[in-house]
Amino acid sequence: MEALEYVEQHRERFLSELAQLLSFPSVSTDPAYREGVAACAQWLMEHLHTLQPTRVELFPTAGHPLIYAEWQRSPELPTVLIYGHYDVQPPDPLELWETPPFEPTLRNGCIYARGATDNKGQFFTHVKALEYFIRTAGAPPLNVKLLLEGEEEIGSVHLQEFLQHNAELLRCTAVLISDTAMYQDDLPTLCYGLRGLCYLEVTVRTAAADLHSGVFGGVVDNAITVLCRILSGLRDGYGRVTIPGFYDAVAELTPEERQALEELPFDAAQLRAQLGAPILFGEVGRNVLERRWTRPTLDINGIIGGYTGSGAKTVLPAQASAKLSMRLVPYQDAEDIAAKAEAAIRALTPPTAQVEIRRLHGANPVLIPLQSPPMQAARRALRRVFGREPVFVREGGTIPVVEWMQRTFGVPIVLMGLGLDHEGAHAPNEHFHLKNFLRGIVASVEFLREYARTHEP
Amino acid sequence: MEALEYVEQHRERFLSELAQLLSFPSVSTDPAYREGVAACAQWLMEHLHTLQPTRVELFPTAGHPLIYAEWQRSPELPTVLIYGHYDVQPPDPLELWETPPFEPTLRNGCIYARGATDNKGQFFTHVKALEYFIRTAGAPPLNVKLLLEGEEEIGSVHLQEFLQHNAELLRCTAVLISDTAMYQDDLPTLCYGLRGLCYLEVTVRTAAADLHSGVFGGVVDNAITVLCRILSGLRDGYGRVTIPGFYDAVAELTPEERQALEELPFDAAQLRAQLGAPILFGEVGRNVLERRWTRPTLDINGIIGGYTGSGAKTVLPAQASAKLSMRLVPYQDAEDIAAKAEAAIRALTPPTAQVEIRRLHGANPVLIPLQSPPMQAARRALRRVFGREPVFVREGGTIPVVEWMQRTFGVPIVLMGLGLDHEGAHAPNEHFHLKNFLRGIVASVEFLREYARTHEP
Repeated sequence: MEALEYVEQHRERFLSELAQLLSFPSVSTDPAYREGVAACAQWLMEHLHTLQPTRVELFPTAGHPLIYAEWQRSPELPTVLIYGHYDVQPPDPLELWETPPFEPTLRNGCIYARGATDNKGQFFTHVKALEYFIRTAGAPPLNVKLLLEGEEEIGSVHLQEFLQHNAELLRCTAVLISDTAMYQDDLPTLCYGLRGLCYLEVTVRTAAADLHSGVFGGVVDNAITVLCRILSGLRDGYGRVTIPGFYDAVAELTPEERQALEELPFDAAQLRAQLGAPILFGEVGRNVLERRWTRPTLDINGIIGGYTGSGAKTVLPAQASAKLSMRLVPYQDAEDIAAKAEAAIRALTPPTAQVEIRRLHGANPVLIPLQSPPMQAARRALRRVFGREPVFVREGGTIPVVEWMQRTFGVPIVLMGLGLDHEGAHAPNEHFHLKNFLRGIVASVEFLREYARTHEP
Repeated sequence: MEALEYVEQHRERFLSELAQLLSFPSVSTDPAYREGVAACAQWLMEHLHTLQPTRVELFPTAGHPLIYAEWQRSPELPTVLIYGHYDVQPPDPLELWETPPFEPTLRNGCIYARGATDNKGQFFTHVKALEYFIRTAGAPPLNVKLLLEGEEEIGSVHLQEFLQHNAELLRCTAVLISDTAMYQDDLPTLCYGLRGLCYLEVTVRTAAADLHSGVFGGVVDNAITVLCRILSGLRDGYGRVTIPGFYDAVAELTPEERQALEELPFDAAQLRAQLGAPILFGEVGRNVLERRWTRPTLDINGIIGGYTGSGAKTVLPAQASAKLSMRLVPYQDAEDIAAKAEAAIRALTPPTAQVEIRRLHGANPVLIPLQSPPMQAARRALRRVFGREPVFVREGGTIPVVEWMQRTFGVPIVLMGLGLDHEGAHAPNEHFHLKNFLRGIVASVEFLREYARTHEP
């Protein structure tokens, strides 16, 4: 039986199962929901047991457990590791929900519930794809491993360690994740790049204590002014970063990537109006999507110093600090960039001040080769299911999990987003389009089949 | 009888009266002390009545009352307006006082109490000088007006209006104030210049709301970065202000002023160590006292924007604001400088941002001509009493009352400081040196006599 036919036959049950999964209040950040997280994990364990895995196991962590299952066929076959997360964001503000967040409701062709698109509805497509193979063929056409996390919404605090300690268990030839968005409704989308992150905190001191600006203004340097000068020296007025060596490792777009980018529909005027910016900003000679997705940036995320209450206080501040972060692109390295930024900051610090730099956060950028077999398999699968050529996009944000997986396994990561922007992830009335849930199952089947085929002798 | 002899004869009573004056908890800022302020004003009124003024009056305000007395002799004679304030700072932290703040105690040649040096002890020297003239000659040698304020420590909130409405009543040919400090112990000091102030608040906006720095970094400008660039554009790395026209009205020191400055003992290394600054800072080619007292400055007093909590948040801030102030020197005008600063800020604002500027505070600088008759009279008086030539200093801070008086009356203001730094003004264990209290009385007598003499036909 073809996948589409199977999905149509079992549509009601699939939606009923998804509704059960969405009824668990698996909010990871709030201890009051600890039972909800545990019950959700338990339900998933029971559900996976019905799909005849060769192994299924709950891995406790210091926080919420990880769920692992595998359908091992043969070491000769390729192995896909599917990742998803069963924890959800808090549902607040509750009063803005039209129907209760943990009472899933169908309307307007969508299922409404916290976690519908982020990420239960998306990862469940792959679980149902596995069911299809098991019920119709006894097994998937290749080895499949499934890893479901319960702490994604709180920074995946135990995942990195788990990956390192279980690299052998999780070994694979490709990773499949559906936790991104389609570029537009009905436009199948593969995300092939994410920006990395280098986050620093800078503190400047110019005296032992705050001073009177009348008595000492003109003989002691001002910590805020020094900090402003340092920060101003890190990028030019067009957003180009002026840290020496910052662009050394930055790859220009390939002709193929540039073409993919230029073919995407995009309205800059609409974006400007939506954001309420006087005009859009950025590097000269690069278009908006290129700047958002493929160019590194430097932003000040926060600054504080001196007197910030209402009215006037004539203090000469002795200390000021700022948080700043750089979005990185292939093939910049977060450690290398942190070192270069620190050197630039120290070089910009005048002898009238002392500077202290803390590294808060780092993640390398991700770039998945468009020509890799899993990516091309995903492309063919989506084209078949959606009836049109998928678009290749990057995203400007950083998903540390993806970078950890790429670093741990050294294999292509297929980011097959099935969600849509404006489906209310992290907001009230979160929902997931049923059509994408159902064709997501078929796309998953097609992907596993296509990818298995690339390894046929 | 000579003043010195009179003071020695009445020393015990003078100290006893000063102790009475200091026993009133006349804390102006705290409503709990309202009775203490009123009782202090009442005691002063009664005390002044014993000195046979031609007029004495309590002027109520919406806050604490002003006390006014005059010894009017003849419209032909010069008129000195003596200003002081009978309100004091709160005594907290109480546990750090060796003796209770409102139980005046004599030890180590000083009287300890809140208000001892700031300002009851200082202005009371002039009251006792008046007593000397009245008891020994029936009247002072010229017209004297005395204005005692009860709100100096809370910004003289009603004084400016009072001066404007009573300019005729207060008309004078010179003002005498003892509310500054001697440059060193036993070194008689006349302050002839104060810096003015222009205080602005600047707010920058680059979007309607904070954005995700991953999704939008590189296409929307960063409000903090813009603000930092604006602020960095207002002064150079050596503290020289780069606002166009900023120095147009700045007067260089006269040779006489420069000589006075260079003759002052000063240890820059000690100042640096005391402040805990890596090195001292400021305009090239100008010495430290010159920079502190006679050069205009621009300082950022506070800045805030974006995420300022602990850890990392990848926000692209839509708004940031800063407070900044400029210390002004003769003959800069606070209004003119505010307009120039605003123009410079607007010129530095890129098209990617909107800027809003608020004027919070302004005060013009003060410069009292060294050669004016009251100043020269004060110089001779101090030289006679202290047995050495007084030094002429400026101060880097701003005393709005002085500027208001100069503007209202257009006459020289004699700032005859009798206090010392480190006498604990605004701090625990405030005290006033008895030797300065007693020779301050003699100096006041000598000043009034000297100044009267300059108008003899």
